[in-house]
Amino acid sequence: MQDKNHHIALCDQPFEPDDLYRRRVSHFAQLDVRNGDVVMLGDSLINCCEWHELMGDARIKNRGINGDTVAGVKHRVPTIMSGAPDKVFLMVGINDVSHNIPPVDIAHAIVSLVDYMHALSPTTRLYVHSLLPFDSSYHYASLAGKLQDVLYINRLLQEYAPAHRYRFIELYSHFVDSATGVLAPSYTTDGLHLTGSGYALWARLLQPYIAE
Amino acid sequence: MQDKNHHIALCDQPFEPDDLYRRRVSHFAQLDVRNGDVVMLGDSLINCCEWHELMGDARIKNRGINGDTVAGVKHRVPTIMSGAPDKVFLMVGINDVSHNIPPVDIAHAIVSLVDYMHALSPTTRLYVHSLLPFDSSYHYASLAGKLQDVLYINRLLQEYAPAHRYRFIELYSHFVDSATGVLAPSYTTDGLHLTGSGYALWARLLQPYIAE
Repeated sequence: MQDKNHHIALCDQPFEPDDLYRRRVSHFAQLDVRNGDVVMLGDSLINCCEWHELMGDARIKNRGINGDTVAGVKHRVPTIMSGAPDKVFLMVGINDVSHNIPPVDIAHAIVSLVDYMHALSPTTRLYVHSLLPFDSSYHYASLAGKLQDVLYINRLLQEYAPAHRYRFIELYSHFVDSATGVLAPSYTTDGLHLTGSGYALWARLLQPYIAE
Repeated sequence: MQDKNHHIALCDQPFEPDDLYRRRVSHFAQLDVRNGDVVMLGDSLINCCEWHELMGDARIKNRGINGDTVAGVKHRVPTIMSGAPDKVFLMVGINDVSHNIPPVDIAHAIVSLVDYMHALSPTTRLYVHSLLPFDSSYHYASLAGKLQDVLYINRLLQEYAPAHRYRFIELYSHFVDSATGVLAPSYTTDGLHLTGSGYALWARLLQPYIAE
């Protein structure tokens, strides 16, 4: 956890919620999180899936917001953790990558977020997903050339897991096309977001952690 | 149901799904709809709500797609109706309004969609929401001056309900600000989509129909 002050300067700058974030947070404020719940927390990759249906588990709650960042999630976790859910599964960081935050700072900000979540609810078990590969040739030009950044973030997230008491869930290698090195085309329609096949694969990889 | 051929020309033109639609439909293809289910079907107003949580009812499934139109919903209802759900609640049409489809054609297309849904699953009870008011001064310029169109669509949807065997759920009057005649500011952050307060109001109005 070097450069902690540096990442705070970059990732924890005053957070400016946009109207979609404010709207979604106002909806979440009307919904409960309780002991026993399992929370899927993060950005559009979380939001765009009907997790409780896909996993066949009514305990699962979707707390995804399209476009969310590590700072955005940090801003709203108190509401979630105050309910002391059993488990929280985190997927966030790709929007920070697209905003040109240095990868080491993104990884440190995620780990700092996890520490904060532990402090808010010590009984909740925390899981951090690796970031997924993407294919910036469709139309996410802000991600061009940044697959190495994602791999570096993932390596750091894996390394930091034991010391910061979270389970790291490695997805990247399952979603990458081994021939091209980018997100496999069957899992996406836009190079970043996932198709039904993509979510089905994620669900298979997630199932053991939901069940444990 | 005058002008039926006319509405077919305007609303049932060859449907061109965008990548978000294709992605979401591919996800729905991995999920079941079964007898006993309650389906919330429509556009972003449906998609952006965690209905099963808000209503406290695990039977409720979200089949909303941001930006969807009457033609888009018609294209994908066979997958939903083949499961013979108990009830389907429909909210669609505002994107057709923004695309400058004449209001009479939108109302007729919605009624035609309902007829099609009855044919696909005769045992399913169908509910059609009125369209909501909006406030185009935020940034939805494509809706400017079209509140009268929405009111006309709503009047037609109410009139056609008995003959086409659906329940009409009037929301407009509950969401409009009586002083300004537009969507009340407490229910929105962008003039069109709903805050948590907006969804809480919708849920209260919906509850008797879910329970009946």
